[in-house]
Amino acid sequence: MTAPDSGVVVIVGAGLVGASIGRALVAAGRRVHVEDRVPSHAMVAASLGAGSVEAASADDVTLVVVAVPPDATSAAVADALVRFPRAVVTDVASVKSRVLRELVEAQVDVARYCGSHPMAGSHHTGPLTADAELFVDRTWVVTPHRRMDPAAQQVVEALVTDCGARVVEMLAENHDEAVAQVSHVPQVMSSLTAGHLRSVPATHLALAGQGIRDVTRIAGSDPVLWRQIIGANREAIRAELIAVRDDLDALLADFDDPQAIEDFIARGRVGAMSLPGKHGAPSRATVAVVIAIPDEPGALARLFQDIEAAGVNVEDLQIEHDPERQVGYLAVQVLPEGVEPLTAAMQSSGWHLR
Amino acid sequence: MTAPDSGVVVIVGAGLVGASIGRALVAAGRRVHVEDRVPSHAMVAASLGAGSVEAASADDVTLVVVAVPPDATSAAVADALVRFPRAVVTDVASVKSRVLRELVEAQVDVARYCGSHPMAGSHHTGPLTADAELFVDRTWVVTPHRRMDPAAQQVVEALVTDCGARVVEMLAENHDEAVAQVSHVPQVMSSLTAGHLRSVPATHLALAGQGIRDVTRIAGSDPVLWRQIIGANREAIRAELIAVRDDLDALLADFDDPQAIEDFIARGRVGAMSLPGKHGAPSRATVAVVIAIPDEPGALARLFQDIEAAGVNVEDLQIEHDPERQVGYLAVQVLPEGVEPLTAAMQSSGWHLR
Repeated sequence: MTAPDSGVVVIVGAGLVGASIGRALVAAGRRVHVEDRVPSHAMVAASLGAGSVEAASADDVTLVVVAVPPDATSAAVADALVRFPRAVVTDVASVKSRVLRELVEAQVDVARYCGSHPMAGSHHTGPLTADAELFVDRTWVVTPHRRMDPAAQQVVEALVTDCGARVVEMLAENHDEAVAQVSHVPQVMSSLTAGHLRSVPATHLALAGQGIRDVTRIAGSDPVLWRQIIGANREAIRAELIAVRDDLDALLADFDDPQAIEDFIARGRVGAMSLPGKHGAPSRATVAVVIAIPDEPGALARLFQDIEAAGVNVEDLQIEHDPERQVGYLAVQVLPEGVEPLTAAMQSSGWHLR
Repeated sequence: MTAPDSGVVVIVGAGLVGASIGRALVAAGRRVHVEDRVPSHAMVAASLGAGSVEAASADDVTLVVVAVPPDATSAAVADALVRFPRAVVTDVASVKSRVLRELVEAQVDVARYCGSHPMAGSHHTGPLTADAELFVDRTWVVTPHRRMDPAAQQVVEALVTDCGARVVEMLAENHDEAVAQVSHVPQVMSSLTAGHLRSVPATHLALAGQGIRDVTRIAGSDPVLWRQIIGANREAIRAELIAVRDDLDALLADFDDPQAIEDFIARGRVGAMSLPGKHGAPSRATVAVVIAIPDEPGALARLFQDIEAAGVNVEDLQIEHDPERQVGYLAVQVLPEGVEPLTAAMQSSGWHLR
């Protein structure tokens, strides 16, 4: 194997993900060839800057990225290992254990295979929407295995870095359990909720707001793709779904108990808050700066002006009330580093802090 | 009763919805008084332009809008009917049958009561985030009943119009079934999905993408509010949830059958597509204009330029392939009125259409 950052890359499969990887690698200065079972897809990808459609010289190829539908992945990986005898081969399928198991069962030598899964996508499909920036700052899971030449992992990690993504190393089984929990079960729940709408009259659907649109957005996903994803990760998803079904049964059993309903909604809130914040950063706790609201006309408007002038980012606002003193307080939630500047600015403007 | 568009309005409850109604009515030139169990909330609402905190003269009041939590609504409506003997009273609770039933059971004369429900809200609460534009172009359901003076409905509809919203008249029972289907069941499904995340390790949560964030966004809602909403609409929600649970059981029973999985996801897609489009307009069918992609470098870039220059809004793009002729086609999805101008522009630029 040559150094990870040189040599020719072959992309097998010019869909959204394959063509986007091609564009990202071309932009990073790599030499890329792109192929697809459907020649016009490869041609479109190439015309969008995802590489060349000319056949690559097998000996020059150091990396093959297999980006085909889940059910076709292990066969395409096996084929690539034969066609490109010096190349590391990776795939981008969203379920990892089955690919490796099928390769091993087919007695393929998997020393040069290292699976991976870029955690980026789109509701778009096909090369037309390929985007060289699709993976920037995204997580890209790399799944090494014990039959693998460790150098293969370096080659795949260089691919991830060239695409601007962050490497997260996981065992295939852990990855598959994780995506069952954070991706596949939510897909099933969204489809379940949306499927139920088929029997709802149009006059009732007219009352739909943003909430149900958010819950059912991913229900618009491709049924054929999801048949393959769910099929590939069936046991992990089944285990999670049975737990969810049991939670729903428990809710229905307690449905006449208002406290049980409140506890159920509160548990959901805890679960939703456990998701990391945007850009992979954990949600950050905010701190309240609490300011007394004087009982005089226009006070609040002046207070807002002074808060804005302090130049501190306000994460949230609440009103608090002191029932004994009949005084209102404005609780201004800011990140920890904002407490001191906001406090100083408010005090210098003459506001009373609690 | 005086003409709907004159007279004083009293808002009972200065939360987000009450304060937003106050601001919208003040902006529309109405005289508004705002009151709240917590005086500083009314004061904040007033300072934001939602009306006056001075007590209104009872005889001048022609409309009272009760905007308090669901469990407190019927008592506040009954109280308002007594305190303001010339006024029509409406409420904005998100479940309508129970309010009316509780009033009738308490032997309140409901001739001057006409319930309503603005289909607008926010994950914010409290008067600070009050927005005079909150209801613009939104649906606002008005629920007349047979014990009502028909003139009361006119007064409430004038309120809706003054807030910039659209009146939809429904029976309370139909409204409650509709919101169970399009709002309350989706809330339960979002909370159910999110609650399940509590047992997911942080290393797995780190793989969460946009999909699960969308599905679980409304799971961040207030447990106390939702205890009251679900409690008020329990039977309608229970019936829907049992059907959803049965669908989930059926899915689990067929979970080893790939075709059953595909059909399940496809049913979800049909359901998601049945939701009306943005701004209440129905989703519009698009028509494909199909253009042959010449096999020459740069052709696709030129094609995109010419499509853009045609000035027709492109709703979607797909690539199609003719396996016999080894030719690629670009299917450009446009609204029906765009077909003729796009076809003409493409032909005059020398492209071949299929």
